[in-house]
Amino acid sequence: MIDLKTDHKYSEVADRIQSLIDKRILKVGDKLLSVRALSKEQGISLSTAFQAYYYLESKGLIEARPQSGYYVKYSPEHVLDLPRVSDPIDDALPVGVDDMINSVYLDLRSEKLLNFSMAAPSFSLLPIAKLNKAVMHTLRETDASCTNYEHVQGSLPLRKQIVRQAFNWGGRINEDDVIITAGCVEALSLCIKAITKPGDAVAIESPTYFAIFQVMESHGLKVVEIPSDPQTGIDLDYLEQAIPRFDIKACLFVPNFNNPLGSCMPDENKKRLVDMLAKKEIPLVEDDIYGELYFGKTRPKTCKSFDKKGLVLHCSSFSKSLAPGYRIGWTIPGRFKEKVIRLKRMHTVSTNTLAQSAIANFLENGRYELHLRHLRKALHTQALRYMQAVCKYFPEDTRVTRPTGGFILWIEMNEKVNGFKLHKKALKHNIGIAPGQIFSAQGQFENCFRISYGDPWSEKIEEGIKTLGKLVRDFGGR
Amino acid sequence: MIDLKTDHKYSEVADRIQSLIDKRILKVGDKLLSVRALSKEQGISLSTAFQAYYYLESKGLIEARPQSGYYVKYSPEHVLDLPRVSDPIDDALPVGVDDMINSVYLDLRSEKLLNFSMAAPSFSLLPIAKLNKAVMHTLRETDASCTNYEHVQGSLPLRKQIVRQAFNWGGRINEDDVIITAGCVEALSLCIKAITKPGDAVAIESPTYFAIFQVMESHGLKVVEIPSDPQTGIDLDYLEQAIPRFDIKACLFVPNFNNPLGSCMPDENKKRLVDMLAKKEIPLVEDDIYGELYFGKTRPKTCKSFDKKGLVLHCSSFSKSLAPGYRIGWTIPGRFKEKVIRLKRMHTVSTNTLAQSAIANFLENGRYELHLRHLRKALHTQALRYMQAVCKYFPEDTRVTRPTGGFILWIEMNEKVNGFKLHKKALKHNIGIAPGQIFSAQGQFENCFRISYGDPWSEKIEEGIKTLGKLVRDFGGR
Repeated sequence: MIDLKTDHKYSEVADRIQSLIDKRILKVGDKLLSVRALSKEQGISLSTAFQAYYYLESKGLIEARPQSGYYVKYSPEHVLDLPRVSDPIDDALPVGVDDMINSVYLDLRSEKLLNFSMAAPSFSLLPIAKLNKAVMHTLRETDASCTNYEHVQGSLPLRKQIVRQAFNWGGRINEDDVIITAGCVEALSLCIKAITKPGDAVAIESPTYFAIFQVMESHGLKVVEIPSDPQTGIDLDYLEQAIPRFDIKACLFVPNFNNPLGSCMPDENKKRLVDMLAKKEIPLVEDDIYGELYFGKTRPKTCKSFDKKGLVLHCSSFSKSLAPGYRIGWTIPGRFKEKVIRLKRMHTVSTNTLAQSAIANFLENGRYELHLRHLRKALHTQALRYMQAVCKYFPEDTRVTRPTGGFILWIEMNEKVNGFKLHKKALKHNIGIAPGQIFSAQGQFENCFRISYGDPWSEKIEEGIKTLGKLVRDFGGR
Repeated sequence: MIDLKTDHKYSEVADRIQSLIDKRILKVGDKLLSVRALSKEQGISLSTAFQAYYYLESKGLIEARPQSGYYVKYSPEHVLDLPRVSDPIDDALPVGVDDMINSVYLDLRSEKLLNFSMAAPSFSLLPIAKLNKAVMHTLRETDASCTNYEHVQGSLPLRKQIVRQAFNWGGRINEDDVIITAGCVEALSLCIKAITKPGDAVAIESPTYFAIFQVMESHGLKVVEIPSDPQTGIDLDYLEQAIPRFDIKACLFVPNFNNPLGSCMPDENKKRLVDMLAKKEIPLVEDDIYGELYFGKTRPKTCKSFDKKGLVLHCSSFSKSLAPGYRIGWTIPGRFKEKVIRLKRMHTVSTNTLAQSAIANFLENGRYELHLRHLRKALHTQALRYMQAVCKYFPEDTRVTRPTGGFILWIEMNEKVNGFKLHKKALKHNIGIAPGQIFSAQGQFENCFRISYGDPWSEKIEEGIKTLGKLVRDFGGR
């Protein structure tokens, strides 16, 4: 255990070194002070000095060379530009999710595949042994070993834990406000169904996660794609004007670590968004599935935390942070609660009892917080490593996002590169990516693709990114 | 030829057994001595002992169960009439599932409740210890202990086991034909969505399980309720005429041990139904959730087994026979497979991995067949006990079904009795029933209610039925 004082000290020293690197006072290849010298110079303990270097190393900024010491690794010169703010067609369009999505995900089943296309954590980052203990505890301790139907609304102990967790994002809710679902997609689908009727226009981000298009298509909705900045998310001014123009009846956004942009809407934007929609009585479905996976010091707030009128339908799940296969998500749908419960009864009735009970037990024992701390650190390191590799192996005219949370890099290439063709070529090298075209209902983002950095860094991954870079160069360019 | 002396002897023994039944020293569901033991005990020949049982069986007092022996069936004096064939309003009507269903099932949450309203087996009838073993085996033996996403279509080992099981009802399918779902209701919902568009008319039974109305309502469909016989199910002639009159686009029936009638469509009716619909290219959603729970010698066939054109979408689950809370169902949707998979991806993506894997393991070890044999016997006995109690404690003008499988008795009372009011009154005595009104979109069946005999017979249950009988009498009548 790192005590707080030490924790503070090492990160403070590390931050100062990082700022020297950022300002290019320390350059790539420069040798750093030895651990002993750093400790003396800064008046800190040896172990604190070591922690500072270890932390910088984990972020990919410096590297240890055997029998030699620490060296600067990262160079800000070599950072590629951010992707451009999206520029979707200004219209409300019916969704025709074409067969591309199905074909992409059908292709990606092979076990041999180096799969950059799944936005899920590597199993090596999941607390599987402890989760299994929670399952076994549950089988032993519950009536009928969880063979009984759970209430439609979901397990009370689990809903209590979700309330406790919601405290971190400023949620002022109680267990009666929460409905458990079969993963986040069910939550989104039920919420959207509760607040729209077929033919309605719904505002979404551009680019947007393809499962969201599928939800829209299945409910016969039209979508208005809102331009989005790779760092701050949707353009609120654009949205404000689009609402009356397209008679937008609802919004569905991913404000924290959006998939695929990785953008995180500043908290003041969230407040502005919620207030704007409240004035017009427009409900907002908030997909917060990546919210817990922040790399910064504090958890970003949610739109729900600014919701005074019960118009925000918050949705999330444990699929990205704990156990994808358990299929346990939830929604906090505000004033639409009764409607969502009723819809759930019509579609899946109740959710798997054992998975709910095991996750509740895992959280009750405080294991989730501990696990999340490890997971966030690991993902942060991985994000930096993957980004660095893209910077190294891709052409100079490539643009890449700099996510501050989540799993995903969004890569924009020059106009000659076609994401779907790249996907097909990469498959021949046993590499899976998600082509940009599946993140738009308008066939945009042809020259983009998405990769996940859920898997810990390895030589195989470096080779994979190198190969992708080569395939991208093969398309030619400026 | 039976000679007179022997004749005399067997009837004398039979008479004595009958008097034990009349005095209720031998009760419904009690097992009788084996033929061999009877012969020894009474000092009669084996064939005389057999004749005595055969004689009692022919009088409807006892019955032979395969590989098991002879059981007391019912007391002949006291059998009530069957409910009448239903007479729904002859129209295609939109479904407005009113708040009655929600209120009934909200009321029924109390733990103290003697709950006759849940169509599910008692936990004491489930193989919980062996199922837990399968869960633990699965946690130990699978990659990542089932934290991974399962394929959208579902676990391959489980689909293989479902194919094996389908052999019993004449299914000629392979594992590629099967899609796993979150329980049977999800299967029904996805299948109905795949074959209809809002506003279409769908034929259903009358009375019909209320969850089916909710599925119809959620997809904006109209329903045509088809008159149904408590023993043989829907009136095929009526259906044939109704199809052109109401432009029926699809059918959803529960041919085996329908909920709530308990009717079982004769196999020749199934064939006629499938052929009739095939000529008109009308798809049929077949809910076979109770099909394995037969009391007779062989499993009734399914409509799917007569399907030559891929127009039957077979749906079922393990919720009524193995583990309600696991939420594992499936569909075999014929030519609509790709569409159903796509819809599943839009609504719940994949189904809980651990539950699929554990059930597959349980079935692979041959435990399911063994368990089903025990469960069928237990349910058969319970059916007879509950029926007898209804015959004993309810007014003479009561009518009750005689199910040959499943969980459910449907009780029709005289016109003065109101099912919903009875439900409210029964609740005050901590007894839960499902009032008849929730089984019709037309507000029919006011004087009916449904009880489940899923719980093993006990004094408490006898008291509960006695109380219900008293409450029914309080309404008055002829």
